[in-house]
Amino acid sequence: MQNFADRLCAAVQEKDSRVCVGLDPRLGGLPPHLTEQSGGPAQAVEQFCQQIIEAVAADCVAGKLQAAYFEVLRDEGLRVLWSVADYAHQQDLLVIIDAKRNDIGSTAQAYAEAYLRGDGGADAVTVNPYLGTDGIKPFIDAAGETGRGLFVLVKTSNPSSGDLQDLTVQTTSDSKLVYQHIGDLVAQWGGPLVGGSGYSSVGAVVGATYPQQLAELRSHLPQVPFLVPGYGAQGATAEDIASAFDNRGLGAIINSSRGIIFAYQQGDWTPEQFAEAAAQAAHQMKQEINRNLM
Amino acid sequence: MQNFADRLCAAVQEKDSRVCVGLDPRLGGLPPHLTEQSGGPAQAVEQFCQQIIEAVAADCVAGKLQAAYFEVLRDEGLRVLWSVADYAHQQDLLVIIDAKRNDIGSTAQAYAEAYLRGDGGADAVTVNPYLGTDGIKPFIDAAGETGRGLFVLVKTSNPSSGDLQDLTVQTTSDSKLVYQHIGDLVAQWGGPLVGGSGYSSVGAVVGATYPQQLAELRSHLPQVPFLVPGYGAQGATAEDIASAFDNRGLGAIINSSRGIIFAYQQGDWTPEQFAEAAAQAAHQMKQEINRNLM
Repeated sequence: MQNFADRLCAAVQEKDSRVCVGLDPRLGGLPPHLTEQSGGPAQAVEQFCQQIIEAVAADCVAGKLQAAYFEVLRDEGLRVLWSVADYAHQQDLLVIIDAKRNDIGSTAQAYAEAYLRGDGGADAVTVNPYLGTDGIKPFIDAAGETGRGLFVLVKTSNPSSGDLQDLTVQTTSDSKLVYQHIGDLVAQWGGPLVGGSGYSSVGAVVGATYPQQLAELRSHLPQVPFLVPGYGAQGATAEDIASAFDNRGLGAIINSSRGIIFAYQQGDWTPEQFAEAAAQAAHQMKQEINRNLM
Repeated sequence: MQNFADRLCAAVQEKDSRVCVGLDPRLGGLPPHLTEQSGGPAQAVEQFCQQIIEAVAADCVAGKLQAAYFEVLRDEGLRVLWSVADYAHQQDLLVIIDAKRNDIGSTAQAYAEAYLRGDGGADAVTVNPYLGTDGIKPFIDAAGETGRGLFVLVKTSNPSSGDLQDLTVQTTSDSKLVYQHIGDLVAQWGGPLVGGSGYSSVGAVVGATYPQQLAELRSHLPQVPFLVPGYGAQGATAEDIASAFDNRGLGAIINSSRGIIFAYQQGDWTPEQFAEAAAQAAHQMKQEINRNLM
């Protein structure tokens, strides 16, 4: 199976899009005509996601499923998550499960099996590096064997991300910030999975809300693809994320969740037009980003 | 609802046990007579966990469900997880979901709702601190409102935990190790949730495989209860974890997963005797720990 990073780059070029639609189907944000139907919350989430996917698939390269909003459905959560993932694949989107998983080696293997091996599964999963190398390696092994990928949290988009990530650490040889140290580990972990595109299947999550750090990491980690959250509703603009790309317009995909899926809440849309509003938002975002490429 | 830490301390005293049984139902470790039945993997995992729980409940205060081994069941994973959690509650075990969840604030809220709010749910969940305060606060808010708790990863039991956790960080006022910095944050976050027991419902995960750090954290964080993995199969002994307790024998619960649930693979047991072997292993572990209390 082809390297994940190469498939990602090919999809970006084919669709001329760097947009990842964030599927964060918070029940309170769904249009009433879906939540009031008799099938219950799980069915409402499933139908909402399917209609969003169908509407935005032409303008997006990937769908990022936020696991929390499926797990909150309790018993039916994973059935709906995998049903939506299948539907996204059918509509020609790459599927990223934003699960931020992490555990010790033997358990990390089980997570890697759950998300990156076997039939179906995701094209990539997000992982948290707090446990160090042996908690990441099972995901890398699975990614290498199955042509899939992972995005390791490096510098996250939230206001408190600096509590740990911006601290200065002393290593044996030098001094750097925690997120820089993790970024260096990501580059090292991903070395063996660099494909013909020049990018590795071991990527990094770098928030659009920290444009200076994003630019610095892009220039320091030339083979690491970035998954960049924080665009739109979290406040980042197309100018903020322009530096995430190389001179071929590759190297990053930009996620927007609420700004696309709940676009119907802004402007003159009716709730019934939620999919049309999402399609327009995704199309505009694609164009804004492309206009700002260097 | 009573404070989680107080309920935990009361359970320890009532059962005179500090043992947490780790429910890591890896399919390859299940007895063949369960996996070969016609109901499929999900049913095998469910039956295995129920029989283990029934066998060990008298000697354990809590059951720690390792989410990865349920998620690997795909569609049925969460149904089985919650079914096993319900069963553990019925058998008078506190339920900890070892999910190591983490995300930005709005999504952390959804995770907190999935695990710590509403009917059923867990008594506590494990969380990862890489995203800082605003990724933790929704779990603390939910714990405070519902009488439940959380355990924040501080110093994990795996060999690579030092890759990040043991680095020296410079803060404005002093220099300490990452895990010490996170430990201090945990104490600060948990201050408002300290109950009559003297312990907070915001606990820490500290690996038994690092006994020196465990002792140091115990003395430095007198109000933080510890969830201590790494006993038994990972190599730690009752002497290694003796320092995790205060002079009342409170302040920590010690997890063993494989050492209890797969005890039938050691010694002269048949696979059909897996529950009996687990009961004996849990009972022995309880006694070993109690003998080593100071």
